[in-house]
Amino acid sequence: MQKEFLEVKNLYRDKEEYLGKTIRVAGWMRTSRISKKFGFVELNDGSFFKNIQVVVDEAKVDNFKEISKLAISSAIIVEGELVSVDNAKNPIEIQASKIIIEGESDSSYPLQKKKHSFEYLRTIAHLRPRSNTFSAVFRVRSVVAYAIHKFFQERNFVYAHTPIITGSDAEGAGEMFQITTLDMKNPPLTEEGAIDYSEDFFGKETNLTVSGQLNAEIMALAFRNVYTFGPTFRAENSYTGRHASEFWMVEPEITFGDLEDNMELAEDLIKYIINYVLENCPEEMDFFNKFIDKGLLERLNSIVNSDFVRISYTKAVELLIESGHKFDYPVEWGCDLQTEHERFITEQIYKSPVFVTDYPKDIKAFYMRMNEDGKTVRAMDLLVPGVGEIIGGSQREERYDVLMSKIKEMGLHEEEYWWYLELRKFGTATHSGFGLGFERIIMYLTGMSNIRDVIPFPRTPKNAEF
Amino acid sequence: MQKEFLEVKNLYRDKEEYLGKTIRVAGWMRTSRISKKFGFVELNDGSFFKNIQVVVDEAKVDNFKEISKLAISSAIIVEGELVSVDNAKNPIEIQASKIIIEGESDSSYPLQKKKHSFEYLRTIAHLRPRSNTFSAVFRVRSVVAYAIHKFFQERNFVYAHTPIITGSDAEGAGEMFQITTLDMKNPPLTEEGAIDYSEDFFGKETNLTVSGQLNAEIMALAFRNVYTFGPTFRAENSYTGRHASEFWMVEPEITFGDLEDNMELAEDLIKYIINYVLENCPEEMDFFNKFIDKGLLERLNSIVNSDFVRISYTKAVELLIESGHKFDYPVEWGCDLQTEHERFITEQIYKSPVFVTDYPKDIKAFYMRMNEDGKTVRAMDLLVPGVGEIIGGSQREERYDVLMSKIKEMGLHEEEYWWYLELRKFGTATHSGFGLGFERIIMYLTGMSNIRDVIPFPRTPKNAEF
Repeated sequence: MQKEFLEVKNLYRDKEEYLGKTIRVAGWMRTSRISKKFGFVELNDGSFFKNIQVVVDEAKVDNFKEISKLAISSAIIVEGELVSVDNAKNPIEIQASKIIIEGESDSSYPLQKKKHSFEYLRTIAHLRPRSNTFSAVFRVRSVVAYAIHKFFQERNFVYAHTPIITGSDAEGAGEMFQITTLDMKNPPLTEEGAIDYSEDFFGKETNLTVSGQLNAEIMALAFRNVYTFGPTFRAENSYTGRHASEFWMVEPEITFGDLEDNMELAEDLIKYIINYVLENCPEEMDFFNKFIDKGLLERLNSIVNSDFVRISYTKAVELLIESGHKFDYPVEWGCDLQTEHERFITEQIYKSPVFVTDYPKDIKAFYMRMNEDGKTVRAMDLLVPGVGEIIGGSQREERYDVLMSKIKEMGLHEEEYWWYLELRKFGTATHSGFGLGFERIIMYLTGMSNIRDVIPFPRTPKNAEF
Repeated sequence: MQKEFLEVKNLYRDKEEYLGKTIRVAGWMRTSRISKKFGFVELNDGSFFKNIQVVVDEAKVDNFKEISKLAISSAIIVEGELVSVDNAKNPIEIQASKIIIEGESDSSYPLQKKKHSFEYLRTIAHLRPRSNTFSAVFRVRSVVAYAIHKFFQERNFVYAHTPIITGSDAEGAGEMFQITTLDMKNPPLTEEGAIDYSEDFFGKETNLTVSGQLNAEIMALAFRNVYTFGPTFRAENSYTGRHASEFWMVEPEITFGDLEDNMELAEDLIKYIINYVLENCPEEMDFFNKFIDKGLLERLNSIVNSDFVRISYTKAVELLIESGHKFDYPVEWGCDLQTEHERFITEQIYKSPVFVTDYPKDIKAFYMRMNEDGKTVRAMDLLVPGVGEIIGGSQREERYDVLMSKIKEMGLHEEEYWWYLELRKFGTATHSGFGLGFERIIMYLTGMSNIRDVIPFPRTPKNAEF
């Protein structure tokens, strides 16, 4: 039956093909203005951001009375002629000859036309995708996910599925969720009285992954260029609008590539994504620019046309100090950059995306490549206006001895990293990679300011609804 | 630096462009046959299934002696002229003028040239992607993942990320993994002595998802056509070669589409995937056909050109009984079809993929649409030769009252399904969907017979290594 119904998207995009013809569409009534003998229904069929207007005339539609009383969000099937109207924005409408009610809604439908707060809409996550804002956000999310795959596959990267359930610890990347099938009430105990994880499902303690990077390195040292794109988790009790407990991450990893290649790849990726979404979601992007974030399109266009700045951490700290600006967190060499610092660099000093490189080793992860100065590592963060850090990456330590002494120095369990170390023994090579928080880039592209509003069913502390 | 190195894939694909030129490549030494003054190295750079042969001549290569002693799997950078050779299979080679050692391997490298069992290779999952078989499997995995996205996005489906962490129960789909941040040793208890999940991270008991379908239905009733593609989990103590604890699933959901549309979509998808992989991975597919499963290409080609059979469950049971074949599990109307039955239908009776539809309601899930006979539901399974069931789906129960009584009849908790029920109140519509096990289709396309060998880092009972 689905082929009987044209998609509203195609009616708009290929209207010349359908004008004057009798067509059928199926969708949901977004609004209805029907008076005694005549009226209009705005129909959205989900295929397209925009609605199509349906003209409902008592003289033509048998069940006019029934239709005129229909509650919004009812599902209907409309048959009629597609005609052109003198309206640049909505140049077509359907003159209905027949309307079939597929599924009635009623007046208790919570998503009435009045404006709702985003907070409220989160409580009706099963209905909010039917609103303009969330229909736009989730379509952009889908299109950007595809753009990311397209970008990497066109460049011959191998998409690597890294495991969600992991037996390794977090490498300090954050708090983890534990996974178990043990009876929490009566867990088996060892003789020493500890939980006996040998009886757990995987025979040891397991957690949800915080990053696929270490596994991605395995794949990169076989396939040269790879990427992951999957869910990652943080069990942090963070209630900010920028943190979710479950989010998607993109992690490319390139071999025979150094930090310069890594930055180039990151810059190409960001620009590719922006161009792709501007080209493929013009209606949604216009909507965001009008109703969510007025400077959005200007900002995105300027980024596509700019060369990203590249400065060292040391230089960044100098500039921040020289600026004389009073920060909540004072700046000195060795400190971790806070969001206020990052935004100052990208928004005030450069007014452009900025790569900051070569951070102090003590504030970065064990696997980042040590520089000759013995003090800094080959790390990079990409800072963008309006958000701050959007990408974090590094050249990886490929030297067995240096990596081993770093693992020991940081008190990590050498035996847990046996395979990671072996990669450095059997044909090691220069390699680099980064992580892009998928939700961060969606927020950046849409202007949405809360991460809960760019995930269809967000998971945050005390919240796993739907 | 990465741009200095051409990809071996491009050398093969665009050889006319590079013949006679001095080029640089970087990769790993797969084999080495170097005698006193002259020899050959097979280099694989990960960009391509095939190696490129490097001619190493003492007269041309400074560090000839060093190179001649190099252990396989060492990473090297090769500079030299690309020349053509009279060999249809490998029409090009590099005459090295310079070889730089990027990272040495040594004789303890476990992946020596001799044939290893797949069981053994699982214990070196950090190295097996460098073998022919696994390089082919994981590249096909990547290409098929992309084909799936491409298929749906070209058809204007919205990619919906459904949650991994879920507060709902399994709907009988299987055992679940529990997620917690509670101290397992001293969990907080309620006054009644039960675990106090209100103190757990999400304020209630949570698990890893077994399916994104119910959430996908939310999205389909807003966007018309959607799909999910993400990890799902089963905590089943199953040690077969067909079951993993963590696997990826593709779940499209279409609105204003019935079971016929659903079957058409499934058939189109399977054919699209097969065509895409045959076109984009010819070298890998030839390899599988030669070394893993001799009938593979013939079988896949025949499927692309066949019309899938569609029969009812009732008819299938009749045919199985009529066949007179002695099954381990006897067949009668009402029984669940076992793999032996499924394979008999698709391999012996029809020698073609077969959709079996309209199963007895008692062996299917609560959300499947009840038929007028009151005994069967609008379910479908797609059975394919060599595997059995590869897709399971249904038309969904869109009628509020029927769904509600089904939920009650099956003893499910009505209040847990409040939003699922509300979808049937506010503009319900005919809709359908199915689930395709991603690993199942990879096994089917490659001829690999153990699911552990199509997942880079598989998770199975008592195993969460790497």
